[in-house]
Amino acid sequence: MTHIVTSYASELETLSSSVTQMGGLVEAQLSDVMDAVARRDLALARKVIDLDARIDVYNHEIEADVMNLLALRQPVAIDLRETVCAMKIAHELERIGDLAKNIAKRALVISQQEPLRALNGVIRMGRISLMRVSDVLNAYAQRNVAQAKSVWGADDEIDELYNSLFAEILSAMMEDASAVNACTQLAFVAKNFERVGDHATNIAESVHFLLVGEYLDELRPKGDVTSLTTVPKPDDKAPDPEDKEQP
Amino acid sequence: MTHIVTSYASELETLSSSVTQMGGLVEAQLSDVMDAVARRDLALARKVIDLDARIDVYNHEIEADVMNLLALRQPVAIDLRETVCAMKIAHELERIGDLAKNIAKRALVISQQEPLRALNGVIRMGRISLMRVSDVLNAYAQRNVAQAKSVWGADDEIDELYNSLFAEILSAMMEDASAVNACTQLAFVAKNFERVGDHATNIAESVHFLLVGEYLDELRPKGDVTSLTTVPKPDDKAPDPEDKEQP
Repeated sequence: MTHIVTSYASELETLSSSVTQMGGLVEAQLSDVMDAVARRDLALARKVIDLDARIDVYNHEIEADVMNLLALRQPVAIDLRETVCAMKIAHELERIGDLAKNIAKRALVISQQEPLRALNGVIRMGRISLMRVSDVLNAYAQRNVAQAKSVWGADDEIDELYNSLFAEILSAMMEDASAVNACTQLAFVAKNFERVGDHATNIAESVHFLLVGEYLDELRPKGDVTSLTTVPKPDDKAPDPEDKEQP
Repeated sequence: MTHIVTSYASELETLSSSVTQMGGLVEAQLSDVMDAVARRDLALARKVIDLDARIDVYNHEIEADVMNLLALRQPVAIDLRETVCAMKIAHELERIGDLAKNIAKRALVISQQEPLRALNGVIRMGRISLMRVSDVLNAYAQRNVAQAKSVWGADDEIDELYNSLFAEILSAMMEDASAVNACTQLAFVAKNFERVGDHATNIAESVHFLLVGEYLDELRPKGDVTSLTTVPKPDDKAPDPEDKEQP
């Protein structure tokens, strides 16, 4: 009902800044959920769970704005890529928000048991995954293709950490049946942080496409090999390091 | 370079039939990976892993077609929704393909150990999640809004099965440390099937938006409560059924 006629450029700027605001909220959620897990802060975990609805609203509003822009402005070239990429990035951010919320729920179980040896490593994974998200959001905000490419190529660190933590968590469960509940939740938390890293990579691909108009090669190697991970029982003989890589 | 001028209607039909073909491939992958897990068929598991690349190609091509259609045809109203929804559905299908591939990798570890009690339940979950995917792809192909809505509202069955299986898997690990490797992988397989169901629900939302032009209410209840699941150790006293629902 407003009579102000805005230019398309400023509409695109508004869209992009909504995505950046949404990104800031997702970063805060990731940071809070890590603190909640590390400090057994259940009030903070509940706050993360409650705030997820705001992220979903952002995603909805951005998608509605994109559909409107496509219908009313019929953009082409870089403007079209700006518009569609905003929707794609918002979608990835919404998934990261879901993962943060899921971690927050698991924090409630993890906090009921003795501190777990692997917990520090999982928090470290979380910190690296948050760094990837921050880096890729900076790349988006500053239209920095080199930074997007660097996030895209840097998933290995999280994957390696995840692989070693996964084996550690399996061993802890074998050694102590009373750790099974918390360890299983911790394994899922670690997997969730690994997925946050994957979403950051997806966003990096979108930023690259936005700026360059070409897709990055999708054939990057998958570094998460935990689907093949087994560890020997404590009473078995020493593990053969080859075993981990074998089906 | 072709001189045939196609109508926009036939271009949309081609786009939609690419999505349906991609959906058929994803259904086949889900069906195969269930058989691979159930029958310990490692050759079939490897086939699923290898075929995932074809799904990724579909996703890429559909997205490229969508960007071209948006740029060249500048669709509005239902045509715009057709175009954007094709991209969104392809994206969800690509994720389902990733989950099938991930399950196939885990099948390699699961097959190394004794058959697990919870395996049948996990296969049942898989069958229901495949049914959801098939139903929603039919809803898309036949433009059937009632069927899309029915998939959207039917996620509870998978979630309930998942919740009870998750507790069963935790118990099995506590009772027998040598089952930890396979049980942990099985817990992730169950989670993956639950996520397949979530993606089917997301596709149902897209199909509804495509046909009706309005979003389904996103505030449906989350039925997966396994992030809060703990089970007592075998030597503890009988479980209080209330425990499962508590943080």
